[in-house]
Order: sequence, then C-alpha cells, then structure tokens
Amino acid sequence: MVNETQHSCSASSSSRSDGNSSGSESSKDNSRCSTPVLDADRHERLREKMRRRQDAGDKWFSLEFFPPRTANAAVNLISRFDRMGAGGPLFIDVTWHPAGDPGSDKETSSMIIANTAVNYCGLETILHMTCCNQTKDDITGHLQKAKRLGLKNIMALRGDPAGEEWEEEVDGFNYAVDLVKHIRNEFDDYFDICVAGYPKGHPEAESYEADLKHLKEKVFAGADFIITQLFFRPETFLKFMKDCQAIGITCPIIPGIFPIQGYHSLRQLVKLSKLEVPQEIKDVIEPIKDNDAAIRNYGVELAVSMCRELLDSGMVHGLHFYTLNREVATTEVLKRLGIWKEDPRRPLPWAVSAHPKRRVEDVRPIFWASRPKSYIYRTQEWDDFPNGRWGNSSSPAFGELKDYYLFYLKSKSPREELLKMWGEELTGEESVFEVFTCYITGEPNRNGYKVTCMPWNDDPLATETNLLKDQLEKVNRRGILTINSQPNINGKPSTDPIVGWGPSGGYVFQKAYLEFFTSSEIVTALLKVLKKYELRVNYHIVNVQGQNITNAPDLQPNAVTWGIFPGREIIQPTVVDPVSFLSWKDEAFALWIEQWAKLYEEESPSRMIIQYIHDNYYLVNLVDNDFPLENCLWQVVEDTFELLN
Amino acid sequence: MVNETQHSCSASSSSRSDGNSSGSESSKDNSRCSTPVLDADRHERLREKMRRRQDAGDKWFSLEFFPPRTANAAVNLISRFDRMGAGGPLFIDVTWHPAGDPGSDKETSSMIIANTAVNYCGLETILHMTCCNQTKDDITGHLQKAKRLGLKNIMALRGDPAGEEWEEEVDGFNYAVDLVKHIRNEFDDYFDICVAGYPKGHPEAESYEADLKHLKEKVFAGADFIITQLFFRPETFLKFMKDCQAIGITCPIIPGIFPIQGYHSLRQLVKLSKLEVPQEIKDVIEPIKDNDAAIRNYGVELAVSMCRELLDSGMVHGLHFYTLNREVATTEVLKRLGIWKEDPRRPLPWAVSAHPKRRVEDVRPIFWASRPKSYIYRTQEWDDFPNGRWGNSSSPAFGELKDYYLFYLKSKSPREELLKMWGEELTGEESVFEVFTCYITGEPNRNGYKVTCMPWNDDPLATETNLLKDQLEKVNRRGILTINSQPNINGKPSTDPIVGWGPSGGYVFQKAYLEFFTSSEIVTALLKVLKKYELRVNYHIVNVQGQNITNAPDLQPNAVTWGIFPGREIIQPTVVDPVSFLSWKDEAFALWIEQWAKLYEEESPSRMIIQYIHDNYYLVNLVDNDFPLENCLWQVVEDTFELLN
Repeated sequence: MVNETQHSCSASSSSRSDGNSSGSESSKDNSRCSTPVLDADRHERLREKMRRRQDAGDKWFSLEFFPPRTANAAVNLISRFDRMGAGGPLFIDVTWHPAGDPGSDKETSSMIIANTAVNYCGLETILHMTCCNQTKDDITGHLQKAKRLGLKNIMALRGDPAGEEWEEEVDGFNYAVDLVKHIRNEFDDYFDICVAGYPKGHPEAESYEADLKHLKEKVFAGADFIITQLFFRPETFLKFMKDCQAIGITCPIIPGIFPIQGYHSLRQLVKLSKLEVPQEIKDVIEPIKDNDAAIRNYGVELAVSMCRELLDSGMVHGLHFYTLNREVATTEVLKRLGIWKEDPRRPLPWAVSAHPKRRVEDVRPIFWASRPKSYIYRTQEWDDFPNGRWGNSSSPAFGELKDYYLFYLKSKSPREELLKMWGEELTGEESVFEVFTCYITGEPNRNGYKVTCMPWNDDPLATETNLLKDQLEKVNRRGILTINSQPNINGKPSTDPIVGWGPSGGYVFQKAYLEFFTSSEIVTALLKVLKKYELRVNYHIVNVQGQNITNAPDLQPNAVTWGIFPGREIIQPTVVDPVSFLSWKDEAFALWIEQWAKLYEEESPSRMIIQYIHDNYYLVNLVDNDFPLENCLWQVVEDTFELLN
Repeated sequence: MVNETQHSCSASSSSRSDGNSSGSESSKDNSRCSTPVLDADRHERLREKMRRRQDAGDKWFSLEFFPPRTANAAVNLISRFDRMGAGGPLFIDVTWHPAGDPGSDKETSSMIIANTAVNYCGLETILHMTCCNQTKDDITGHLQKAKRLGLKNIMALRGDPAGEEWEEEVDGFNYAVDLVKHIRNEFDDYFDICVAGYPKGHPEAESYEADLKHLKEKVFAGADFIITQLFFRPETFLKFMKDCQAIGITCPIIPGIFPIQGYHSLRQLVKLSKLEVPQEIKDVIEPIKDNDAAIRNYGVELAVSMCRELLDSGMVHGLHFYTLNREVATTEVLKRLGIWKEDPRRPLPWAVSAHPKRRVEDVRPIFWASRPKSYIYRTQEWDDFPNGRWGNSSSPAFGELKDYYLFYLKSKSPREELLKMWGEELTGEESVFEVFTCYITGEPNRNGYKVTCMPWNDDPLATETNLLKDQLEKVNRRGILTINSQPNINGKPSTDPIVGWGPSGGYVFQKAYLEFFTSSEIVTALLKVLKKYELRVNYHIVNVQGQNITNAPDLQPNAVTWGIFPGREIIQPTVVDPVSFLSWKDEAFALWIEQWAKLYEEESPSRMIIQYIHDNYYLVNLVDNDFPLENCLWQVVEDTFELLN
C-alpha cells in the first residue's frame, strides 16, 4: 500500500564537463520531478530555481497559507499541502502572526507549520517574519531556529505596530529593510530573502514614489525577489513593475493573486489591506453577495483573465496565490491557466523531504511506505541519511514511540467516523478480518460505511496495490491482515504511470513484498511452508514482545525497489532492513492500541478483542527474491492455509 | 576483455539473528567464492577460515613459494600465483632468506612478493620470518612494515645460524619461541602465527621428545597452528601428530608435502633439511635418475598415495605443498586428489584484493578490467574504497604514471616475442589495425605468429569477450581499435559460467560497453552519429592532450555491471566513471609508447607510426544504457562508417 502523495518537485541539472569540451550535452530532462536524488537540482536555492525556470520560459506558481488555530486544523492543512503540492508549486509560504506565538514549538505556530511543509511534505517553503516590536535577540533566535529546522527562505516584513499609531523605535527594527540587513549581517548568504511590494504604494507611505524608494532600499540591502500585495487590475501590476525597473530594481517581482472566494472574505481583506475594490467589481458582486457559488465562479473568471493578461505581457513568469488556506478556487484557476501540473513522475518512490540535511537521502525501509511522515519524524535527529550503512555498520536509532507529533500516532479522521468504518462493536477476530477486507475491496461494511483508512494507512488503497486487490481480499478474509505490499516488477520503464519513478529512459524493478499481522496458529503453519521456499523467500516474523524469527543473512538489508538509469549509478530507494523492522514493529503494534482499541470503553469486549490481537498476533514480512518469476508469496499463503486444513 | 584470472576465495558467513530466534537459517552457500563483498567471511582471519573448513569437513590445501632472484622471475611468479590461486588454496606462504634482503622494497624481496600476493593476487598469505642474528628493532620494523602492507599472518622461525656452530645470544632472539612471544607482546592479537613442526624432530634437537616440548612452548607462547617439515612416509606424520596431541598440543597441524620433482632438487633438499630418504624410494629413483619425466611421474604417484592415506586417516584436514616455485607436479597431485577446485564463480566480477583495507571495496572503474594489478597499484594509498563517492564528492587521486612497479607498465613477454606478435616492421596505421584484428580472431599474423597479448591486455581474449568476437573483428579491421568491451546482459543467473558472479540465487546485469582508440576523422563522424543516440548512449572521447568530449550528466558515474541477490543490497561493482577515465587515459596512451613504440629504434618508421597514433588518435568509450534491448553500439559504429563513405 504504497503511499500516494509522492510528489516532490525538482528539475534537471545543467550540463558540465571536464577539460576542453567541444560537444557536451548533458541535460536531457527539462521537466520537473525527473531527476534522481543525487542531482544538483536538489542543491539549488529557491532564487536559482526561479532563475532557471524563467530562463527556460517555464511559467510557475506559488501558494500562500496562514497557520491554523487548532491542532485538528493543522492536520487538515498538512493534507492540503500534500494535495496542492501535487500540482507543482515552486514554493509555498507561511505567514507570521505575532499574536499567535509564531516562533514557538506549538503545532499551530508559523515555525512548526513551515517546518512540516519543508520536512514532511517536501515543499520549498518561505517563512514570513515580521520585525517591529521585537528585539534583535528574538529575531536572531527565530532565524537560528528556522535554519536548524531546515528552512532556507525568509519573507522579511515590518509587521503591524502594536498600538494604533506607529512610532519609530531607536535601535529597534523599524522597517523591513532593517530585518533584511540583519539577516544578511548575521546569516550571510544562508537565506534567500523575499520582500513585499505594494503596487498601489504602502497605505502608510508618504507617496507612491517614496514607497518605490523604500522597496529599492530593501532590494539593495540584500533581498532576492519581491512578492506583491494583491491588486484588482493587471495594469496596476504592470505599471508598478515598469516603475520598479525604471529606478533600477532588477530582481524578480511576483504578482500576488487573490481569487475572490466570497463576499465576506473579500471585505475583510480589503479592510486589512486598506485597498479599494474597483467599482466594476463591486457592481458584479453586490447583487450576488448571498450566493457563494456565484461569487466564487466570478472570482475564478476574474483571476483567470487577469493572470492570462499578466502572463501574456511577457513580463511575468510566476504567479503567487493568496489561498486563504482554501483549495478549490486556486486549484481551478491554476488548472484553467494550464500551470497546475500533476506530474505522475516521481524522483524517488517516496516523497523526498526538502530539508537540506536530507538532500542526499536515497534509501528508506519499506515499512513506513504508508507513513512517510512518521518515518521523517522518527529520524529527524539523524545526521546522515541513511544513518550509517543499512544494517552493517551502525544500527540506526529511531525516535521513541512516546514522542507525540501532529500526525505521528493520530488519525486524520474523527472518532465517530473511525467507529463507523472499523465497527461500533466488534464480536470477534473475524469482525476485524472484515474491516481489513472492506478496506481492500472498497465495498461498504455491514453497516453500509466504506472503510477508507486504516491505522496503518491514512489513505485509500494505492493504485499500485490495486494490482494485487483480488489476492489481498482473499487472504484478509482468512486472517492474513495485510498492511503493506508491492508487486514484483521486472524492468518497467521509469516513466510507467503506476510504478515508474526517476528520470526518463530508465528501468525500475521491485521484489514482491507482503507484510501482515496474523495469529500464532497461522505463523506455525507458515514457518513449515517457508522451509520449502528457503532459498527464495526472506522473512521476518516478530511479535509485540520482540520474539524474532528470520532467515535474513547477517542482518543485511534486502533491496526491494531499485532503478537503473542512463549515465548514473544504481538507485535502491527501498529496503527491507532487519534492524529498523524492530522499530517499525513497535509502531505497528502501538497503532492497534492508540488508534483502534482506544476508540472503545476500557474493559469493553471490542477493546479486549483488539488488545488480544495486539498481544498475540505476529507481524510478518515476506520478500520473494526471484523478481523475474511470478510472485510466489500468494502460493506461500495458499500452502499455509492448505496445511492448516 | 574482462580479465580472466579472477578467483579470490572466501566462504559463506555463519548465521546470526536478533532476539530470540527460533528458526534462523541464514547461511545458504557452503562452497567457497560464493559470497559477495560485504559478507563476514572477508573479515575472517586465517585461523577462523581454517577452523570453519575443518568443521565443515571441507579438505583444503596451501602452497609454499620462495622469493625469486630477478625481476623477470618475479613477474613470472606473480602469474603463477594467479594461475595456482585459481585452484583455491586456503593460503600461500613466502619464505624468508636473510641473505636476500627479505624485508626490503626490492621487487624480489620476501616482503614485496608477499605484498603482491595479498594485494594484487588477492591471496591469503603467510610471510615467513626468521629471528636469529637480528635485533629486536629489526624484527619489529619488519613486522610493522608487514602490517602496513596488509599482511596478517607470520610463520615464526629461528632461521639458520650465521656461522657453522650456533651460539646462544644473551637478550637476543635465540629460538622461534622468542619471536612468537615478541609478536604477541608487540602486536597483540593482530597477526595469526604459524610455527614449524619436525615429524622426525629438529636435526639439532637433543631428542625427539625434547623437540616436541619446544613445539609445545611455541604453541603455548601464542602460535595458532603448525606446518610440518617434509617427510616421506605417512606414518611418520601420523605418529608425530598423536605424540603432539598426547602432550597437549591441540592446534591444527598441517603436514608439509614435498612431491619429488627431480633427482637433483631432492638431493639438495635432503641435504638442507638433514633428512634421510627411505631406502624404498632410493631404490626406485636411482635407476631413473636421468629421466626427469619418469621421476616426476613417480613423485606425483608417491605424493598422491601419501596424501590419500593422510586424508583417509581422518586426522588431516589440510595439506601444505612445498612447490619449489613449480606448477606442474603440485597441480597434478591436487587435481588427482580432487581438492584443486577451479570454481568459475566469483564473489565479484573482478579479483578481490586480500588487503584488510580493501575488504569493503565493492566498486571499480571498468577501464582497468584487464589491468587490475595496475589499478590496485595506483590506488594503494587510498584510505577508503572507493575514495569518496564516485564522481560526486571527491575526485579520487590516482598514483602517478612515473611510478614504476613490477607489472605496472611492463609486459610479461620478452621483446623478441612482442616483435613477432606486433610486427618487426610496421608499414602504416593499417599494419597496426592488423595486429588488433589478429588478437581478436586468434589467427596468426602475416608472419605466422599468434597475437596472444596486447599492451592493454596481457592475456588472450576473455571468454565473455568471445561473445562479441565477430563484431570486434569487423570494426578492428577498419580502425576502431578495441581495448575493452562487454556485452549487455539482462538478468542472467548469478551462477552463469561466463558472466555470473556473486552468491547463487541472484541475477546479474550489464550495460553494453565498448572502448577503443580511433582516428580524429572517425571521431568527427562518430560525434554526428551519436547525436541520433543522445538519449541512449553515454560517451567519453578524449585525446592524449586531454581534450574531452562527453554527454555524461554532472560527471556522475554510470553503473555498467550490477547484481541483485537474495536478501541483500544491490551490488554495482563496475562503473564508467568520468573522473577516473582521465587517469586511465594517461595510462592507456602511455602503453602505446612504453610497450609498443619503444620496441623499435628511435626515429625508425615503425616507432613513428606508433608515436603518430599516440599523438593523434582519440580514446573513446561508449555505454548503451538500454540493457534490455539489443546492443546498439555496433549500429553506432556501422552508421559512422556509412557516414564516412
């Protein structure tokens, strides 16, 4: 059940050759998501990516979000990052609200939301930061923390004054330019810096011209590019851009696009930004102000036509969207503009993290395939990826299970929904088998609800796993409770829409894998059957107490996914690793209790059934090493059932 | 033209599993040469290998050599190491002659010969060392040097006294036991130590019993096993062994076997060892003393029957052969005993070096495939293998070409022979094409001589390259002078007798590779043709001045040989690496001059033809990345010739 939200974007590297080259042409892939892990693009800074896209005549977009108020909303926002990240934004940015403790470790702080976007969603991310009413030490502290978390881009803002009237502080940060200078002084060239531009002039500026001068100061102090405040007419932006260029501002200027999504949100935004809505827009909106759908349709139309005009001008290469944390309108605009690019190609089978430390990461254990964020969380303290050579030199140490994090042991779905899916009342182990079977088949359970997630998998079955659906259904019905699997693949093109990954022109391979919980009776029979397959199938069988039965040679990892590409070393991004399996075992067993058993009252029969499974079942993984032959793992299971009868 | 002398022996690892294992069975391959590079057996010490072979009931043999007198003889001895190494000795040993400057850096010293056996031939090696008439500092210096060179085993001997009568020195090394103690004191458990046993008692010992006591002292001082002096009757050894056991010697005792190879060598050895030849042997030999063949045949018979008796006794697990640096008799005995095991399986496609530093080496550039010793020589100063990640992090630094070593730029064949093969007089570039073509076809050249080696390849065409013979012949005739090539392989069993390597149950793969010298006219046409193959073929084209044309992305290495094995990570032992190609280029061009041009008089037309090729030709390598399809490199060459016409 390979996770489906696997889109981390990057583009191909530029050519380079040694000596006096007279014919070097190395860069073949020009689309994003096409280069494997070790390429230069993963080392590119945001400003370089922006420049390369502009040089290639490649239009792009970016998305702005604000930090949510509750932990539940944060979990939802992260899902939105994953979904909207699939469209291929060049970056996202997260705003900074001084009142909301933005630099803290709270799940809802700007810092932690941006950290999540970078590290767990693999998105290039800009963290906003305001400076007024803050000490230098505070600011430096925030910046150090951002750097430590792997954030590489800052949007430097003044922020709103604390009281009604703004007063300049001696020695304090009074303007965004002070923050830009401070970042450059203290962190040299580490951060890419973005600053705000006001196409109509800042509302507090003496004049439009004076505001342009302030902008120039910010750029000359070290800013790398500009994102503008929203505006309602394309000519507003185009005039502003020409005026900037006229006074010598040459860095990229990205127009901020605000698709109108509702009457009230528009009024509020206008109030905050002190902008005036043009009469022609008011004339359309006022009559339909109570019809949300109509307003949104109009907003999409308006945004599309304005964006087209901007892009057609030849002066605009990227568009920045104020999403208000909503998905539908912005996605619609992007799709109609043709710049939403859901590329099925992936640089690796799993979503690559954007943390600089993880740039070289090119292998992970298969166990966390459906829980990649948990894997990143548990390995966040590692200095190297992987941490030592798999299984051989050093045992990687995984974060403890007692740690808690946004999405670590928590389901995205509320308790009531989970109870509907997994059963208000369980009557025995068989009712658990039924839940697993319904998840596989997609059929409603006996109470008419579809089972769209499981404790080990927050998403419906992956396309790849669908290939195994019939067989999975059969075995789950009989108590082989599958939580992860992949088919064997013998050299499919790397561009294959279902199993492909990496640059084009390559070939991808997989060994068949099957992981499941099952009873000790079945394990006893299975072990007898496995003797027949000793030379072909590797297995690890473990229970919650840690009893461990395996035929893996010398605790070595077994590569189960690999790719062969033109002009490159072999990439083996997924392994079955005996050492990390013992850490995964703890997590996999804990999920029975944390996500499922705890839905029921203590001492209730339902809870006791799950507790019984947790205490007595085994977690089994099987690898069929003969990837060119037909997958034998189903036969292994079949033989096991036969032996039992 | 993959090198053929690729047999480094090791055996499979023992099982290990985590937790409370109730069914761990990890060791599948019990024959030698069957485990890949990262396995425990490469970390095993000689005494452990010996014990494991004994436990497995697996009979083994070892071979003793003495250092040669001349550099030419050293080159021949090294070839003999390679050929006899193919039969699978558990170890070889090199004797120590105080008069021959045995610890020096001379090509013919014991130290350097042993160094070559370990590092270049990949043989487990014991270096003899004598102690009498030497200071502690001398001895320690020798041992330190041995350790530095990667030698791990010492045969500790007293040696012969300087004068006629031996006198005990105060505070000096008087007995082998002093040397054993010294090694253990100074080097702890680093070395495995062997000592000599005398089945008839040492000629200078007071008595047989006293000599046994000395032997026990040596063992109790830290020796790991015993090799005996030669003897003529099996019962001599078996009695000795029982007597040793009776006084508490429990370590392995290996009988020293001396196949009689000639009348004079026997007489000389008997004189040196002060042994008496039994009458029944004398009776056979005396009448045939002038018939070498007859004596050798008898010697083989005698040795075989004695060895059989020893092995059948159940007390003997290994046999040590005094080869006198000769091949035929010992090989014959071993073959008739059935313990000469030429195993076509290889742990890796290239011969693994036995230096402890190189234990983890698992990747090499393909360029040195036919010159593995040169590669080892040029990388001997590396601390890691490979030295940093290929092509990405650090450029490996190769030893300079000006360095000279036994086999580095020197051919094994004498000048006259080379002239017969490569032409007494060259008449133009075409006569060079002819030499290359004859090497490929195996047909005699126009003067009736077979071309059995080339400057880039000391051996006849490898079996694998034979697969490409017809095509190679065609292109060499037309001036594509091939020096290295391999066919594409799409998942053949790892046990394939021609292209297989690594443990059984795996699959091996190759990308097609072709490397050749050719004229600038052909290169110009080739480059035009390569544009058509841009997405499929990677190329590096370089001349002696270093002009370099490539389409390799970012100087990344291209994996061209890899294997997928049960329960393991992927192994990619051969790469086309752009950085090391520039070092190889220097060596490949230098061989034109050093080995070929210098056969002729200065200013002679023949020499000028080779010099012209050296100065003007390009060295080209091509990789066809589409390993599952038919090799397109022949079509590339075909297209090039078509374009030229």
